[in-house]
Amino acid sequence: MEKNILLKIQYDGTNFRGWQRQPGQRTVQGEIEHVLQYLAGREISINGTSRTDRGVHALGQCASFVWDFPLPTEKLPFILNKRFGAGGIGRSGAPGDIRILEAREMPPDFHARFSCRGKTYRYIIERSGDIFRRNMAFQLADSLDHAAMREGAKFIVGTHDFKSFEASGGNPRETTVRTISDLTIEEEGDRTVIEVTGDGFLYNMVRIMVGTLVEVGTGKRTPDQIRCILDGRDRQLAGFTAPPQGLYLKEIYFK
Amino acid sequence: MEKNILLKIQYDGTNFRGWQRQPGQRTVQGEIEHVLQYLAGREISINGTSRTDRGVHALGQCASFVWDFPLPTEKLPFILNKRFGAGGIGRSGAPGDIRILEAREMPPDFHARFSCRGKTYRYIIERSGDIFRRNMAFQLADSLDHAAMREGAKFIVGTHDFKSFEASGGNPRETTVRTISDLTIEEEGDRTVIEVTGDGFLYNMVRIMVGTLVEVGTGKRTPDQIRCILDGRDRQLAGFTAPPQGLYLKEIYFK
Repeated sequence: MEKNILLKIQYDGTNFRGWQRQPGQRTVQGEIEHVLQYLAGREISINGTSRTDRGVHALGQCASFVWDFPLPTEKLPFILNKRFGAGGIGRSGAPGDIRILEAREMPPDFHARFSCRGKTYRYIIERSGDIFRRNMAFQLADSLDHAAMREGAKFIVGTHDFKSFEASGGNPRETTVRTISDLTIEEEGDRTVIEVTGDGFLYNMVRIMVGTLVEVGTGKRTPDQIRCILDGRDRQLAGFTAPPQGLYLKEIYFK
Repeated sequence: MEKNILLKIQYDGTNFRGWQRQPGQRTVQGEIEHVLQYLAGREISINGTSRTDRGVHALGQCASFVWDFPLPTEKLPFILNKRFGAGGIGRSGAPGDIRILEAREMPPDFHARFSCRGKTYRYIIERSGDIFRRNMAFQLADSLDHAAMREGAKFIVGTHDFKSFEASGGNPRETTVRTISDLTIEEEGDRTVIEVTGDGFLYNMVRIMVGTLVEVGTGKRTPDQIRCILDGRDRQLAGFTAPPQGLYLKEIYFK
């Protein structure tokens, strides 16, 4: 009997060429499909909620797939994680940088991408140049004016046309209007943690938002310029694209 | 004029085959020598204080070398770090996992290995299985009895024959007697931090000590068994070799 299975997945994006399967490249989708195929003895294709870029991490990525393999679903995380760990059969020496947190059976019409109603991303900026954290955060020596950044963030929250915050090169979209329901900026020691929740995100949208907020935080822009950037509907108006290693796909919400 | 230069070096050992230069392998010594050679236009050989193993990290490794290149020594860290960073000329895509903290001119008779009078190693054990920390600590789910471990550590401190704590495969040594001047075990949340200072260490000595102390901490051994292990002068008597990713060469002391 066919089962529609949802996986909740954590990964360290450092050594992946992003989520999406690509011939000859190590990707998260490719690694998971490779192990599922090893178990099932036939090709299995999984649908990820979010196509994270190279170097971007996930605390709670999701993916769904259909199979009829007679393996108890609740045992799947343990079995898959053994394959991803040291000594496993992962294609790339199995360095343990993927972990399946949960596997659940879903109704037949569930789809990890199309059933998604929102996501939360986390972005970490650190002042320290600690080499052991170089792939885990955006290391920025400048001090940031968090009050100004929060002021600017207020213009982002709500339903807006986010065309200015979209990089070229993504998939074509019907509309560039999105709703950001929450954007928080917390200071933890010499670390700045930005969390943004929305119903959907354009290509590189979080990283361009963060880059723009950093420019507000360093005084290069005033907070109310964010309003003009949104109104202008032009990527040139917004700030730089913050680097991928600070970005974590934190949580996904389903209908 | 020839200058004898001491470098203080930090590195993330994850993607190195250890310190020592080896043909066809990415090693810390190899990377640093490669960049120095690029600058000087001729082969430069450096002497590291400690030959750390594959996967072992350094907060304060040292190395010395002699050259007559007319570059102000104080500028060397900045210049070398640019080469090790993203976009640098490091042989292996320059992933930024080496950082030179300091460069100093030393008297002609100084040698990073022969002038060393002691070192401190740190070892980190974490109960959490956080995939983002998998290469930075020994991840061990068992809870540890720190009081028992400290009890066992008392037998290690002092001048002893540490033959039981020496792995085979190291360089031949005149004697296996060493003096451990300090061994501390601190609990920081779900992390255990062990620091050990001594005048010298045998091959894998810290990792075998940690493995043995972990066996005390999990109740597999009693603290006073450490005394018998030392007396027996036999590697078989001691515990397992704790994995490399928890080990950091923290500091080096010179005469």
